[in-house]
Amino acid sequence: MLSNIRIVLVETFHPGNIGAVARAMKNMGLNQLWLVSPRAFPDDEATSRAAGAKDLLDQARCVDSLQEAIADCQLVIGTSARERTFNLPLMDAETAAKQVIQEAVSGEIAFVFGRETMGLNNAEMLTCNRHLFIDANPIYPVLNIAQAVQLVCYEIWKAAQAAQQPSFSTQEDAPYARHAEMALFYEHLERVLRRTSFIIPQHEGRVLDKLQRYFNRSRPEKTELGILRGILNAVEETLDREHPPQ
Amino acid sequence: MLSNIRIVLVETFHPGNIGAVARAMKNMGLNQLWLVSPRAFPDDEATSRAAGAKDLLDQARCVDSLQEAIADCQLVIGTSARERTFNLPLMDAETAAKQVIQEAVSGEIAFVFGRETMGLNNAEMLTCNRHLFIDANPIYPVLNIAQAVQLVCYEIWKAAQAAQQPSFSTQEDAPYARHAEMALFYEHLERVLRRTSFIIPQHEGRVLDKLQRYFNRSRPEKTELGILRGILNAVEETLDREHPPQ
Repeated sequence: MLSNIRIVLVETFHPGNIGAVARAMKNMGLNQLWLVSPRAFPDDEATSRAAGAKDLLDQARCVDSLQEAIADCQLVIGTSARERTFNLPLMDAETAAKQVIQEAVSGEIAFVFGRETMGLNNAEMLTCNRHLFIDANPIYPVLNIAQAVQLVCYEIWKAAQAAQQPSFSTQEDAPYARHAEMALFYEHLERVLRRTSFIIPQHEGRVLDKLQRYFNRSRPEKTELGILRGILNAVEETLDREHPPQ
Repeated sequence: MLSNIRIVLVETFHPGNIGAVARAMKNMGLNQLWLVSPRAFPDDEATSRAAGAKDLLDQARCVDSLQEAIADCQLVIGTSARERTFNLPLMDAETAAKQVIQEAVSGEIAFVFGRETMGLNNAEMLTCNRHLFIDANPIYPVLNIAQAVQLVCYEIWKAAQAAQQPSFSTQEDAPYARHAEMALFYEHLERVLRRTSFIIPQHEGRVLDKLQRYFNRSRPEKTELGILRGILNAVEETLDREHPPQ
């Protein structure tokens, strides 16, 4: 799926940016890099910035025109920071990534990024099917090309993950204490709070309710509840030793 | 809202990365940068990489410890590429950003990023409430620090934009305890645990770490922390009354 998605860089000036793009791509599972008339490539600076993603540079396709780079693509998405200039359907990165992940099952798709200084020109944008606009701080919307590619690749990766496992969950399956164990803990806690006069019979207040709310919200795991019970035991034993109950 | 969210960099080695982080932050509307013992700062390389975000470098706060950088924060999110090592609640960047945007209405929040080579150490992660894990290609998950900050800031920006839509107004306003208050609580707790022999000098074990992990995860509100401190006081006073310390 991800192997059907390519990143196309048009007339990149700084070879270091090509390396940074390769690294950003590989971080997110993409490996098809196309270069349209880069000023300098291959180049040591590109290799250096690519770090462990040098394989993407080795496999990169260098071509003379954008047309060549996108010839076999069924969907071409041009990126531009000029919002609404082109009258193409405008998408944000998240929306584009989700659509692309659907379509990449059946065909080739290109994300096209322009020159560092001036992006893609009107003719180039016109060859695209969609206009990707990366939303950013309007007072400083200056994403460099590697950053822009990074964000797009990240959204593609996220969409690919979501497509593979619709119920993606960050929940851990910690062995939480059972309700009955919590009830025993609350009894124990109350006993200690009375013995230490934290709760005074004439002024019961709502402190136990508040403590119960806190501990229930926080959901101690079994081992954590064991520690809390151990602390209460230690307090009782210390008091027993020093001043046995009548 | 965004002004209550800070990025904390711990012992950054390359000043260029500090500049790149500042740029990534400003792109996405963030401006609170804290530096814990950077190797070299201010530095020409940082300024150069920051480009138009030099103002963030000028305003950056340089401190000697992570504790200082997060003292007034109610939520501290540590980033680590070591998945599931720390037993903190694990979040992805999108989930973290959405929660943070809700909470930033009422208090200060920190995202903490570690050293280029080895990230945050265990003790540093233990002071955090949450563990942010940036999902990436498992065969090449090597995001550099500026890329990681970039992705997190991008998710924050997206969540902030979504939150400005009128329908989105479910905000929590629980006054959580501040980090510095939690630090005082841990000191107090340790004192009581030693006095009740729950912690024995010859067998320190990892119980304090486990307790810190539990309480950081559970995030007591100010009033709840007040109750917990009150319990510790009551235990100490009872012991004093019945068996004054020598």
